[in-house]
Amino acid sequence: MANISSLTPVSYRNVSFKDGFWAKRIEKNRKVTLPIEYNALKTTGRIDAWKLKWKKGDPEPHIFWDSDSAKWIEAAAYSLGTHANAKLEKQVDEVIDLIEKAQQSDGYLNIYFTTVAKGERWTNLMYGHELYCAGHLMEAAVAYFEARGKRKLLEVMCRYANYIDSVFGPEKGKIRGYGGHPEVELALVKLYKATDESRYLKLAEFFINERGVQPCYYDQEKEEERKGMTLPQTFDRNKNIQAHKPLREQETVVGHSVRAGYLYSGMVDVAMETGDVSLMQACRKLWSNLTEKRMYVTGGIGSSRQFEEFTFDYDLPNEEAYAETCAAISLVFFAHRMLQVEKDGKYADVMELALYNGVISGVSQDGKRFFYENRLMAHPERTKFGGQKPIERQKWFGCACCPPNIARLLASLGQYIYSVSKKEIYVHLYVAGKAKVEVAGETVTLKQQTNYPWEGAVALTVNPKVEAVFALVLRIPAWCRKASVKVNGKRIVVNGNSKKGYVKIVRSWRRGDLVELNLEMPIERMESHPSVRHNCGAIALKRGPLVYCIEEMDNGADIADLRLPRKSRFSLVSKKISDEKVPFVTATGYRRERSGWKGKLYQPIQTPLREVRIKAIPYFLWNNRGNGEMRIWITEAR
Amino acid sequence: MANISSLTPVSYRNVSFKDGFWAKRIEKNRKVTLPIEYNALKTTGRIDAWKLKWKKGDPEPHIFWDSDSAKWIEAAAYSLGTHANAKLEKQVDEVIDLIEKAQQSDGYLNIYFTTVAKGERWTNLMYGHELYCAGHLMEAAVAYFEARGKRKLLEVMCRYANYIDSVFGPEKGKIRGYGGHPEVELALVKLYKATDESRYLKLAEFFINERGVQPCYYDQEKEEERKGMTLPQTFDRNKNIQAHKPLREQETVVGHSVRAGYLYSGMVDVAMETGDVSLMQACRKLWSNLTEKRMYVTGGIGSSRQFEEFTFDYDLPNEEAYAETCAAISLVFFAHRMLQVEKDGKYADVMELALYNGVISGVSQDGKRFFYENRLMAHPERTKFGGQKPIERQKWFGCACCPPNIARLLASLGQYIYSVSKKEIYVHLYVAGKAKVEVAGETVTLKQQTNYPWEGAVALTVNPKVEAVFALVLRIPAWCRKASVKVNGKRIVVNGNSKKGYVKIVRSWRRGDLVELNLEMPIERMESHPSVRHNCGAIALKRGPLVYCIEEMDNGADIADLRLPRKSRFSLVSKKISDEKVPFVTATGYRRERSGWKGKLYQPIQTPLREVRIKAIPYFLWNNRGNGEMRIWITEAR
Repeated sequence: MANISSLTPVSYRNVSFKDGFWAKRIEKNRKVTLPIEYNALKTTGRIDAWKLKWKKGDPEPHIFWDSDSAKWIEAAAYSLGTHANAKLEKQVDEVIDLIEKAQQSDGYLNIYFTTVAKGERWTNLMYGHELYCAGHLMEAAVAYFEARGKRKLLEVMCRYANYIDSVFGPEKGKIRGYGGHPEVELALVKLYKATDESRYLKLAEFFINERGVQPCYYDQEKEEERKGMTLPQTFDRNKNIQAHKPLREQETVVGHSVRAGYLYSGMVDVAMETGDVSLMQACRKLWSNLTEKRMYVTGGIGSSRQFEEFTFDYDLPNEEAYAETCAAISLVFFAHRMLQVEKDGKYADVMELALYNGVISGVSQDGKRFFYENRLMAHPERTKFGGQKPIERQKWFGCACCPPNIARLLASLGQYIYSVSKKEIYVHLYVAGKAKVEVAGETVTLKQQTNYPWEGAVALTVNPKVEAVFALVLRIPAWCRKASVKVNGKRIVVNGNSKKGYVKIVRSWRRGDLVELNLEMPIERMESHPSVRHNCGAIALKRGPLVYCIEEMDNGADIADLRLPRKSRFSLVSKKISDEKVPFVTATGYRRERSGWKGKLYQPIQTPLREVRIKAIPYFLWNNRGNGEMRIWITEAR
Repeated sequence: MANISSLTPVSYRNVSFKDGFWAKRIEKNRKVTLPIEYNALKTTGRIDAWKLKWKKGDPEPHIFWDSDSAKWIEAAAYSLGTHANAKLEKQVDEVIDLIEKAQQSDGYLNIYFTTVAKGERWTNLMYGHELYCAGHLMEAAVAYFEARGKRKLLEVMCRYANYIDSVFGPEKGKIRGYGGHPEVELALVKLYKATDESRYLKLAEFFINERGVQPCYYDQEKEEERKGMTLPQTFDRNKNIQAHKPLREQETVVGHSVRAGYLYSGMVDVAMETGDVSLMQACRKLWSNLTEKRMYVTGGIGSSRQFEEFTFDYDLPNEEAYAETCAAISLVFFAHRMLQVEKDGKYADVMELALYNGVISGVSQDGKRFFYENRLMAHPERTKFGGQKPIERQKWFGCACCPPNIARLLASLGQYIYSVSKKEIYVHLYVAGKAKVEVAGETVTLKQQTNYPWEGAVALTVNPKVEAVFALVLRIPAWCRKASVKVNGKRIVVNGNSKKGYVKIVRSWRRGDLVELNLEMPIERMESHPSVRHNCGAIALKRGPLVYCIEEMDNGADIADLRLPRKSRFSLVSKKISDEKVPFVTATGYRRERSGWKGKLYQPIQTPLREVRIKAIPYFLWNNRGNGEMRIWITEAR
């Protein structure tokens, strides 16, 4: 068993953000979102639930409340890892104290199954979410230990992991089951890396290898004994949780999309650490199916609200899109891991796409409200029918997975920017700020100055402590048709020199060496594959990594009737949305006259078109100025 | 109180069909569908359920099983009214014997509430369906009495109606409630007309007047006492059953679409018979909202599968369309009644539209399979997800309202063709066959020779017993832009002479007078209102009353990517579908090349278009040649 990853991410603790797109958002996450979420955990009883004082008649804690606290702790830990905050740290310590006390003498730790369903441990692996909650607590424990060096939660979670390891496994007398909602797999690998305890890696491997072996474990669980959550039997439940066949035989992404994203991430983790080539091959196949046939143009994934599932190839409805925030986040996890193994820009492309669109659409510009679903088309009346969530971002959700998930992602965003190998620094994302990187035995400080993603120019200053030979490897995004790179003012060839989406600059670097990258980012008219029936005859606007959308407030009602010619010039107009200057795209387009329609619903084609200015804004910013229609795909004009 | 209807429909018993579009379908209905349905009633226990032998542990009869038998009896009665059939009549008599025996001593009659929920009568007016079942049995009773002169079921239902009248009403001690699923209202008016018992009309009037009076009756029903069906409280249940405000104040069509259609039909009936002008005015407003803002191009109604409801103005999704067969049938009922009062072709236009599209799409060409939902766009994979019904017509349904409903409509289709007033014969629909009509004190035989709707030429021979002066009033459909009429070879002016969609020919008619009508029916490209977001940038093809659709088997997969130019010539090609010669429409169109897409889901627009022949067939015939994609709205080409 050998680690087969090619790259190692640079820790978020060595990366700082300054004055840019992300700095603003990460600061808001720290100053606004984290306190709001703590408050929500508190007022909804999620923190007090750790006291295990629930008694019959009280409102029931939900089976995944544990994970809500856990993700918030993890987010707070990352935040504390870069920005000291005594008040926040005290809050974290207090919650951890409660968690420690909630742990049972044998190591078991779970609110619901220690109170409401006492004595029913592991009776509902399919939907009970015990291993899922354990996983999130493990991630929190590792994050807090790494951020602040405090071991309490880490030790609690090692005890729990040891107990889980004593319960699950291939050995006689152990349960040969695995969690219905994957998460513990990737968490166990984190715990293994933090503690060097190989049992945790082996347990993760067991869960991965056992999953989907037929007859399926869940078929042995007795329906009537299941405590916690259950879902109807009218659909393929084993498929919903990716347990319909062994993972190495799975070639299409199916079932619950967040489960899928966490599972695939855990698969890469295990494959990476154990050198498991067949598992890695399965990851590649799943990646292809996911990104080539089942992903929204925003990087959102999961087409169906019902059971939050993938459906079938090219089925990507816009108005009915599910595209949960957590699912887009899980895609970032998956992409980031694949990137470390494969050194291929296609993974960074998807990671960037999801980050700038389907992920950050999940939080309002002021950091106070959240989307659970990230539809690509919205109508304010429609959202009142048919089980859709409301059109506007919400303060909180009964099933509150998304808000703390986006908080932990933003707080740890630094880790997605750079990776290193022995003699290479990979720059995956362009963000204003600094990083301290160890490469070729030297410490190198990198500084990025850029207004990305609003502009495509990036100035990188390379500051090795002492002159050193290594490669600076810059990503040339697939969306960019024309890129140029200068080193200390001297142009280098990009095209012949770039490989798998990266251009490699090997030289002996000296303090102050300046690399200037320019990524041209004109507005592009995108089309989708002819089998995506929802987008035939329609255009999506994209500029750089940003997908644009049109909103009612800029274009009047009935935006579905706007038509965008295949050719016509665009202009960029800088306008403020809240405190942020945003480039609006405007273009000449058309819409039908509404006069002449009184009393009619259908008629032989006769309505004249009238010229209008179509205004579009970055998709992720929609619904920050009130409620109204929104859509990404615009009808192509005749 | 005075009857305010202007026209009286000519009974189906005086109308015969010959050699045409409908003759074929009505014959299949009689010879194939009716026996199949009897068999289904029998084998599913619906007929035996009348024996009231249910005991605990047996499979439960459904609360509306009574209505399934009733609609079949009604259909059989109409069939017997035009075609004697000893075997069928014996089956009907046997079922009626069972029904008679099932009647309780006080007149009450209901399977579910006499067996499963014994003693729970009228505890769940909202969803218990007792009055709904009573209504369908009354319709059956009247139909069988009128067809065969047999009084047994009529008397049973009069006893039941008398009992219902003793239970419900404004008087002290009576229940001031009404049925959650309207139906009994229109049925009571039929019973009144058959028996001349004015109490039945008064009771119908009471149900209409009481409905929606606030506080709503249902708010007094105790949730925990409700037996039979219940629906979640998470939506506006009073609105779902059109009881959210008094009917005269309702201006938009809301709630369950079949309930709505039956209710509005009952409202017209009561308004017609009582001369209630304010009620009639409400009907007009509801009609306008329904047909100008909430109706599919097929005459289907009800946009949302969830609770089978109307949603909001211009919300007409195609793939997710609900458009129940029963709802389109109820629209025919509503339109037909409005037409008698208003003498306005706009009602006949909608009646014809629904008949030729959203109604008969509900039964397969061989008469053996049925659609419950009539979506306007289908994808064979999509129908496996998200609670959609299967893509193909089914043999039967657990909730089996549609099959016998379409059977009774087809068996009684004759009544929709002609109406008379004192000195007028109105011809609403063009069908090959004969009719015997009483007008101006004379008996007139009318003969129509036509290949309508495949062709627009109609030859009407007028044969009065003796020469008589009266008006022959011919409908000029709104879809027809150019019509001509000749009387005995002499052209008469249509345009200046036509009023509200009809042209009136007054003369002294003699035996053998020949009226030749020609309705030009080129293929039209239809657009829908700019607020119908689902159809913006798309074209529907229509020829005469027939809406066309495209199917995968004629056009290859990914039919969403087909593009139809705004201008280009069509051809008609006659091809057989099963035993029927059908004019296929073909047109030059385009689709994108699929090469160049390997491994890609989105790209900057670049795919070339390639010319193809688009082939379309009448919508109602879709899915008669196997499963595949289907859609009505075709993307307009650049």
